[in-house]
Amino acid sequence: METIAVVSGGIDSVTLAYMIKEETEGALVILTFNYGQRHYDREALCAFKCAQKLGAEFHNVDIANLRPLLSGSALTDEIPVPNGHYADENMRVTVVPNRNAIFLSVAYGLAVSRQADCVAIGVHAGDHPIYPDCRPQFIQAFQEMERLATEGHRKETLYLYAPFVWLTKADIVRLGHGLGVPYDQTWSCYKGGDVHCGTCGTCVERREAFELAGVPDPTEYASTG
Amino acid sequence: METIAVVSGGIDSVTLAYMIKEETEGALVILTFNYGQRHYDREALCAFKCAQKLGAEFHNVDIANLRPLLSGSALTDEIPVPNGHYADENMRVTVVPNRNAIFLSVAYGLAVSRQADCVAIGVHAGDHPIYPDCRPQFIQAFQEMERLATEGHRKETLYLYAPFVWLTKADIVRLGHGLGVPYDQTWSCYKGGDVHCGTCGTCVERREAFELAGVPDPTEYASTG
Repeated sequence: METIAVVSGGIDSVTLAYMIKEETEGALVILTFNYGQRHYDREALCAFKCAQKLGAEFHNVDIANLRPLLSGSALTDEIPVPNGHYADENMRVTVVPNRNAIFLSVAYGLAVSRQADCVAIGVHAGDHPIYPDCRPQFIQAFQEMERLATEGHRKETLYLYAPFVWLTKADIVRLGHGLGVPYDQTWSCYKGGDVHCGTCGTCVERREAFELAGVPDPTEYASTG
Repeated sequence: METIAVVSGGIDSVTLAYMIKEETEGALVILTFNYGQRHYDREALCAFKCAQKLGAEFHNVDIANLRPLLSGSALTDEIPVPNGHYADENMRVTVVPNRNAIFLSVAYGLAVSRQADCVAIGVHAGDHPIYPDCRPQFIQAFQEMERLATEGHRKETLYLYAPFVWLTKADIVRLGHGLGVPYDQTWSCYKGGDVHCGTCGTCVERREAFELAGVPDPTEYASTG
């Protein structure tokens, strides 16, 4: 049993990696993508630490030169990262065009090449309002597309695992807390400073998740105002 | 009307570009991918010349550092390119894992970013036996996946155009001949030498296509034995 997991180094994907390691006996391969996001260094270090801790194979997938083609997002361009609540309409500027389809198609390429059993991604229900490529209907359609794209070349049973697709971030934190996930070694903030800013959409979402889960938040925030 | 076309520089994709230019008044953007294939330099030059001739915007998309992840193909690895007929079972070693899904997901990213109207690819019926990601059911599933992945962010009417999906390569050559496509400025050979080898699967297919179409073949082959 070999699983290829897309891991950014945030709460969701690191919890996913710990869960896979808990659930399966097999090998875990972690892919982390550099697509020119400003918080890449922070994120990737967390993904790398996660891989080290779990004894997983780690690949940094550098697609940063796609950045000029995938413009228009506050995560990559000179557009300010908005403050406020994660699910707000103003968070639309953080959408990177077609990001999950690009990540997953590369992950499937590797899965075919290695004859892996599973591709995994940590999309969750809190993403649905803003990110169309985090919804269950996308996950299902992507799996169907890949079934056809790779027929006769992959392992027959290769599947796409998205166990958080109906969970909230608070559910994930509660679950991960039980698995002993070291959340001080995860990164959320889109601004990519020395510590989490505490005010951008994803920081607000992070703080809320710990509160709602009733789990102590180990994160150092620059501001909680 | 803006179209993003995936153009390798081969017969099919160059004909596609000429056809789009003939059919629409709008802008054409050509994407050519460097995924570490040994015949890249030859191909890309043809794609570039095609873009110049048609007044299209040209982007070289460099994803060559995915090569170690997408291994196992004779197009990228130290595996001999097979001779013989293109549709033969031995051509399976030329399959690059999940190639079209990767190309098309990047093209869709650009299409969302630019609010383009159309993504185009030159897959054709002769590819169906060997390459699952050239079949009509893949094209349909990919379009459905992207409809969901990019909902609310793309132009509502964005569609995937694959006009050759039921045509043979001979049909394409006949069609392109009528459009004045300069086939001496297209590249097929997987071996990437100075001239077309004439014996690898894709050279055999190329020669056959001109013969069947009854169109003079302007290609210089090293051997036709």
